[in-house]
Amino acid sequence: MTQNHQHKHSLLAVALACAAASITTIARAADPLPSWTDGPAKRSIVAFVGKVTKPGSPDFVPVPERIATFDNDGTLWAEQPMYFQLLFALHRVGVLAPQHPEWKDKEPFASLLKGEVKQALAGGERALAEILIATHAGMTSEEFEQIVKDWVGTARHPVTKRLYTEMVYQPMLEVLAYLRANGFKTFIVSGGGIEFMRPWTEKVYGIPPEQVIGSSIKTKFEMRDGGPVLVRLPEVNFIDDKQGKPVGIQQYIGRRPIAAFGNSDGDLQMLQYTAAGSGPRFCLLVHHTDAGREWAYDRQSRIGMLDKAWDEAAAKGWTVVSMKDDWRTIFPPRQ
Amino acid sequence: MTQNHQHKHSLLAVALACAAASITTIARAADPLPSWTDGPAKRSIVAFVGKVTKPGSPDFVPVPERIATFDNDGTLWAEQPMYFQLLFALHRVGVLAPQHPEWKDKEPFASLLKGEVKQALAGGERALAEILIATHAGMTSEEFEQIVKDWVGTARHPVTKRLYTEMVYQPMLEVLAYLRANGFKTFIVSGGGIEFMRPWTEKVYGIPPEQVIGSSIKTKFEMRDGGPVLVRLPEVNFIDDKQGKPVGIQQYIGRRPIAAFGNSDGDLQMLQYTAAGSGPRFCLLVHHTDAGREWAYDRQSRIGMLDKAWDEAAAKGWTVVSMKDDWRTIFPPRQ
Repeated sequence: MTQNHQHKHSLLAVALACAAASITTIARAADPLPSWTDGPAKRSIVAFVGKVTKPGSPDFVPVPERIATFDNDGTLWAEQPMYFQLLFALHRVGVLAPQHPEWKDKEPFASLLKGEVKQALAGGERALAEILIATHAGMTSEEFEQIVKDWVGTARHPVTKRLYTEMVYQPMLEVLAYLRANGFKTFIVSGGGIEFMRPWTEKVYGIPPEQVIGSSIKTKFEMRDGGPVLVRLPEVNFIDDKQGKPVGIQQYIGRRPIAAFGNSDGDLQMLQYTAAGSGPRFCLLVHHTDAGREWAYDRQSRIGMLDKAWDEAAAKGWTVVSMKDDWRTIFPPRQ
Repeated sequence: MTQNHQHKHSLLAVALACAAASITTIARAADPLPSWTDGPAKRSIVAFVGKVTKPGSPDFVPVPERIATFDNDGTLWAEQPMYFQLLFALHRVGVLAPQHPEWKDKEPFASLLKGEVKQALAGGERALAEILIATHAGMTSEEFEQIVKDWVGTARHPVTKRLYTEMVYQPMLEVLAYLRANGFKTFIVSGGGIEFMRPWTEKVYGIPPEQVIGSSIKTKFEMRDGGPVLVRLPEVNFIDDKQGKPVGIQQYIGRRPIAAFGNSDGDLQMLQYTAAGSGPRFCLLVHHTDAGREWAYDRQSRIGMLDKAWDEAAAKGWTVVSMKDDWRTIFPPRQ
């Protein structure tokens, strides 16, 4: 083989590699959202992404400003029969009980240890706060991360018997990937605990810890045996829900999203804040309408109530997804 | 021209484009840090980046974990004769004075309006807090962003007469770009105000607002004339200094940096926290040794005191940069 031949061959190899990459992109672009039925919801997403990414379009948005925020509970994964983080906390009460003999006579722990969850939660917000603090504070950030990882890797949902990370919504995984393929940075903005999500969001959603925003407790820097650790304190730092969501967005991201995805009244202010920016905007609500494949609930639900946000979506023309009609698949295949 | 010819030509064009991209990368790799003299500081940076990016190396670090954090004042830009944010605040007192006739008889404002800065600051932390709150709170986040942009675009340093954004350190701009070219995500972790930095860090440092961590005041979501705004409140939210730096890193990033850059005792805990992780670690202190081209100060300085962190750097073998010896250039060319 002549040197010239070799040179041509290596050029050809590079060109083929480049071409192959382009073909993959085109194939993916053909249907970026295969789990969505061909209805107005899917079309609104594709139309929005199309116009903000088209160079020269009046709606074109530069890549650094393509910020999309997603609620987690009820938007990216399920939230029934109760928030999964609460199921985690209840499990932790059982694990920690041997170290807390006093819990046998102390509510809400006494009821929990007898398996009477409703009775325990009858104590309202105060009971809930006691359960959360007993299970989420007192350890280092690294220890808590491992505790969450262990639980998420093994615990199963009481109804579906799936791993919790298998109860994420396949159509939303496709939206996340589709947006990122189009230059968006995707963030979670959840009322749930920030350190409860971070240990698994990168693997499950492709969202790294630095793009997860959530509620938090305070932490303290300490030297232990000469090494620095962060200790989780029994004190609320930030509640990332309702009015807190735009506050959290400004605090963590420092610019307004151009697209926001939620499912409940807890997401209303995030959607309003997103919609109020100049230029093209996209707001979407997931409506839980599928009692057969998932759950059906809205205005009357204690968890994930969708009432005022639904009215505002109708008034403002935001996209409302009917899980029953718009989603071919709900959950990804079991692992 | 035959179709085959055309095909070959387009393949060739793609191949040449790919090759050109590679050559650019190689050229840059030849000397990624041209403003650094060829000393131990520069060599330590290049050696660290080399080993963590070499596939198959025992020190290889996957891209998502390549997190590098940088202090701002005294590390990325100058901080003498006082923090630039304080100069901004003093300027704002002058601008706002007509709306505050009561300031004429009220310290620390009365002294400031007479140009007696030292006298005004003699009131210590309380006087400082009053100045900061009077100038940083009460407006919306968007209004404050515009105020900072206007100042940063026009105000000039009292000694050098440069724009403040021209008083960033050219050698550190090269480190930021070099790390990013090697898959690092670069963050600012500063005691300065987060919203004072975000309006200009993307343009000046290539660091987007969502990768800026700093001190903050609380904000509140409000509806004004039907539109949602975030109002800046006269209440401290978070102090991102000393022990606060690792806390801020965990809160915002959620994973430990593998490299950290500072210049003062305010950065010590960030460096300790970074150094304490497993695997390869890199810690660097900028030592202000150049009274001719910049300023010279360390153990006795009220601003940017470098004392305990310097001792620990010596004990732990962290890189200590002498601005006089290690940097060929201090500031970038004037605009």
